Amino acid sequence: MKIAVTGKGGVGKTTVAGILARLFSDEGYRVLAVDADPDANLASALGIPESQYKKITPFSKMKKLAEERTGASGGYGSYFILNPKVDDLPEKYCVEHQGVKLLLMGTVEQGGSGCFCPEHALLKSLMKHLLIEREDVVIMDMEAGIEHLGRGTAESVDALLVVVEPGRRSIQTAMQIKSLAEDLGLKRVFAVGSKVVDEADVQFIRKNLVDLELLGFVYLSEEVKKADLEGVSPFDVGGMVVEGVRSIKARLVAKLNN
Amino acid sequence: MKIAVTGKGGVGKTTVAGILARLFSDEGYRVLAVDADPDANLASALGIPESQYKKITPFSKMKKLAEERTGASGGYGSYFILNPKVDDLPEKYCVEHQGVKLLLMGTVEQGGSGCFCPEHALLKSLMKHLLIEREDVVIMDMEAGIEHLGRGTAESVDALLVVVEPGRRSIQTAMQIKSLAEDLGLKRVFAVGSKVVDEADVQFIRKNLVDLELLGFVYLSEEVKKADLEGVSPFDVGGMVVEGVRSIKARLVAKLNN
Repeated sequence: MKIAVTGKGGVGKTTVAGILARLFSDEGYRVLAVDADPDANLASALGIPESQYKKITPFSKMKKLAEERTGASGGYGSYFILNPKVDDLPEKYCVEHQGVKLLLMGTVEQGGSGCFCPEHALLKSLMKHLLIEREDVVIMDMEAGIEHLGRGTAESVDALLVVVEPGRRSIQTAMQIKSLAEDLGLKRVFAVGSKVVDEADVQFIRKNLVDLELLGFVYLSEEVKKADLEGVSPFDVGGMVVEGVRSIKARLVAKLNN
Repeated sequence: MKIAVTGKGGVGKTTVAGILARLFSDEGYRVLAVDADPDANLASALGIPESQYKKITPFSKMKKLAEERTGASGGYGSYFILNPKVDDLPEKYCVEHQGVKLLLMGTVEQGGSGCFCPEHALLKSLMKHLLIEREDVVIMDMEAGIEHLGRGTAESVDALLVVVEPGRRSIQTAMQIKSLAEDLGLKRVFAVGSKVVDEADVQFIRKNLVDLELLGFVYLSEEVKKADLEGVSPFDVGGMVVEGVRSIKARLVAKLNN
């Protein structure tokens, strides 16, 4: 199962992705968590100590590896292999914690017309490998731009979860994501309400999210904020937020199995 | 005066940028507000109605304009002008509201080695023009990656404000921004504490922000959340948040004048 989690910055996307990964792992699945948002920190949401993840370089910054694998050496304008070998990379460059393997993708966004480079080719191949060839459960924490999903890989994503909070900009971002996802051919797009405080927040989200099926709500939690301040993973804190994600996961799995 | 505002997604960066722009405009300055974060919405923070800003295309998406101005036409590999004429663009493509001119930059991130395109050349020239040649007060809402600032333009930014909330990831992002800013030669980097609820939040930020001068704090406000849900600009709501930004602005201006 391949699940991508996205949404406006600060809505709780990484918390949802981290808890989802730990829940699947708890059930015995082999889980690959992919951090593809340079502004997020999936490692700490998974409970990986800072000392451990500080050592990892994101793939987007591995210029040498990209050049080696693509055969690029001559600089701008030279030819290079567009589908480099990558199947050994996830094992080689991951950190493992509580049964979850974490990969740091980083991001190399494509510019406009004709903008391409070895790092980009490496990321694209890696994404294809993770989504199409891997048997594991893959949970991917992505930027709102969902730039990482190309036309070829998007159809291998079983579900795109768009996390929204009770706020207009978060809803606007969700609507943009939905239309981007449609352009890419991604069919199963769902929303998750996050950081809701009361029934008015729930109603605001229900009313404003047009044509996007809601899988459920995660309440704003003082415990999660505190856990974050103390450097503890929200999954290990447990409580309301974990239970919220658990029921969202159950609903999602049921939908995908139908 | 050129001020760039940045920080992790969701910390209140756009709210701070929007209020700053409106405050300068209220004092009679000509203000250019630049939305350079595709995940933000500076327009609504400025109080510009959705019907008005929905009509604008960000510069990053103006492929035709980029091709016209750079003379690029032959696709990948063809030559084009790297410093196209842009000085007429701010007036041509802005929306004006309460004395603030808003420009939508969008983003065309540079990939790795040799990754370049006409859209990128256009944005780069425009950024240079705004920061180096303009007399206006420029308030720029940027991504945490501060990718828009190249080595040549960064030194024209009078101050970079990094907005942080009481949360570990927000602090980590701030530290990354600080080191990126140093690499670019940006000297005046300040922090603004945002979404603080109590003294413990203030202390958490003070304790964890190493080597980054704090200009002040903006408290979490139910009014701002409500205003957002109703589509009203936080500046027009007034109250605690606006007063917080007002005193931060006063401290900043005093620092820059010294």
